[in-house]
Amino acid sequence: MSIALSRQSSPPLLVPNLRRVDSTTVARTELVQPSMCGQTSLLCGRIGDWTWDAVSALCGIQVLNARNQSGAPTYLSFYYYHIRGSSEFHLRTPGFGDLLHVTSSVFSLGSESVLTLHRIARTPVGHDPDPTLTETSVDPEEFYSSRNPDCLYVETFNRWITRSDGGGNTNLLRSSPVDFRHAHLPTLPRKYSPRPTCHMARSQHTFLPDRSDEYRPFGEPLRLKYPVDVSRDLNGVGLLYFATYFAIVDWSLLQFWRALGRTDAAFLNRVVLDQKLCFLGNADLNTVIAVDVQGFTRASDPTEQCADVVLLDADTSRALAVCTLRFADAGGVP
Amino acid sequence: MSIALSRQSSPPLLVPNLRRVDSTTVARTELVQPSMCGQTSLLCGRIGDWTWDAVSALCGIQVLNARNQSGAPTYLSFYYYHIRGSSEFHLRTPGFGDLLHVTSSVFSLGSESVLTLHRIARTPVGHDPDPTLTETSVDPEEFYSSRNPDCLYVETFNRWITRSDGGGNTNLLRSSPVDFRHAHLPTLPRKYSPRPTCHMARSQHTFLPDRSDEYRPFGEPLRLKYPVDVSRDLNGVGLLYFATYFAIVDWSLLQFWRALGRTDAAFLNRVVLDQKLCFLGNADLNTVIAVDVQGFTRASDPTEQCADVVLLDADTSRALAVCTLRFADAGGVP
Repeated sequence: MSIALSRQSSPPLLVPNLRRVDSTTVARTELVQPSMCGQTSLLCGRIGDWTWDAVSALCGIQVLNARNQSGAPTYLSFYYYHIRGSSEFHLRTPGFGDLLHVTSSVFSLGSESVLTLHRIARTPVGHDPDPTLTETSVDPEEFYSSRNPDCLYVETFNRWITRSDGGGNTNLLRSSPVDFRHAHLPTLPRKYSPRPTCHMARSQHTFLPDRSDEYRPFGEPLRLKYPVDVSRDLNGVGLLYFATYFAIVDWSLLQFWRALGRTDAAFLNRVVLDQKLCFLGNADLNTVIAVDVQGFTRASDPTEQCADVVLLDADTSRALAVCTLRFADAGGVP
Repeated sequence: MSIALSRQSSPPLLVPNLRRVDSTTVARTELVQPSMCGQTSLLCGRIGDWTWDAVSALCGIQVLNARNQSGAPTYLSFYYYHIRGSSEFHLRTPGFGDLLHVTSSVFSLGSESVLTLHRIARTPVGHDPDPTLTETSVDPEEFYSSRNPDCLYVETFNRWITRSDGGGNTNLLRSSPVDFRHAHLPTLPRKYSPRPTCHMARSQHTFLPDRSDEYRPFGEPLRLKYPVDVSRDLNGVGLLYFATYFAIVDWSLLQFWRALGRTDAAFLNRVVLDQKLCFLGNADLNTVIAVDVQGFTRASDPTEQCADVVLLDADTSRALAVCTLRFADAGGVP
């Protein structure tokens, strides 16, 4: 099932189930285990690892050990994470023992950033996937315009960052590693660049293009407080783990769900068709995060609902993240 | 680096980096990525997957898809989880890019249970591990009496369970899968059986053998409330995820640490030399967990401290878990 990557590639690849499709694309098959399903943050965390694996395999460096010119560790941080699902395959679909067939294509965004598109197909054990889903690169056209409804798609826009001299988590600097190769990667057509999207999220605190007509608020806006939990929210280098942002968004949505009188069972049955999350800042260990949640219905499509979830430093109001989700209507359940 | 397992084995093995050492032992090399370090629950969850992989590779079934005689899904639940570390290698030691060399030996406990011993050695990328740590099975003598201080050891005692007809999480029944092969596995010498240990935890709510003389309480006993978080605490089949129990224990310890006037930084620097956790019950989604925490100093060894953390259903006082940890003294930091 797996073809070992050439030992000549430098540095050696340490993920035995990764195989090269072409010079910009890798593929892998993953068996769904308890540590990677059931909770959004577990699956999103794992997909984040796959971004790092793809960049390590294709860009001449090992992301996990990358260092900048001055020898300091530099991290391929998540700046924007965009999930596109369907009612057939969304974040809560994978279950114990499913096989995920993951194809990951990497695109150039210059020396300080990189973009990765993942196509994830799913089969029960013993069933082969459609080879057009596992042997072809993922292009932006497919991601934006011609998705296969049987697949889950994820776009990650990552930027190289390092800690500044103070060592805290709030003042991270852009910093690329030595030997990061990206000239061979395709660039994105301008219309698919994530930069304008992220710019809008940063300035408007939403990804919804037009609130007033198409998107109408529903439910009471909610402001919540989430103190960072140092026992559970950090990653291996002491930063607020990017997957934790997904956990905080889900926790906030659950409170919004309950405020609407919806059940926890309905929450667990939610179908997220689209989720965009822009990571605007990290946080020190003693931070209390303020979370603003607002729901929206859509004028042109009553079968969908949306929510904005905005994370701020409660002390300084510095924005930490902006997230917008689109849900399928849960079959009449409010 | 990896040797594919024979395709004749039934069912096919789907974890490409797993290799067979002998008929009762498998080995694997794992690159430490963000999704498996930084938080106890992430690493413990991953080691749990490795138990399931070892049993799947050696006992003739695929644990992820196991079914009992009546066709109902049956889960290899965690009943007892015992971690043995050292100041050189404990749960918080693995960092981005380390290589973990994992050897897992499986022992028979009859048709309804199974015991697994994991030996985890660690090297930086590019360094080969000592072959005696990766090419030899793990025996109970090594685990209990002659550990290598450069390795982390984990013992898991798992039992096959299924949901009863009502479908809730509180009334789980013992139920083995069809085709679970265990007759070829070695049995444990009686003195190493985990059953008396678990019996003590269940009846005494501690793993400490003698509180009165050797272990002296310190700090105020703490009672905390932890409402189950349905957005973050469940596994892929809707049960309270076993790794979540580790997260709740850590969160409770953090509150105890703070009550003692210790800093969060000291908490993050804690060195857990030994942690035993017995899972006595699962919980429905609306459960509030009451957590009792008590610290102990040790008369014969002032360099060590211990803590008991007991999880109960706050409504019914039904015990959900008993955990005892031993810490190295954090260099004089209280």
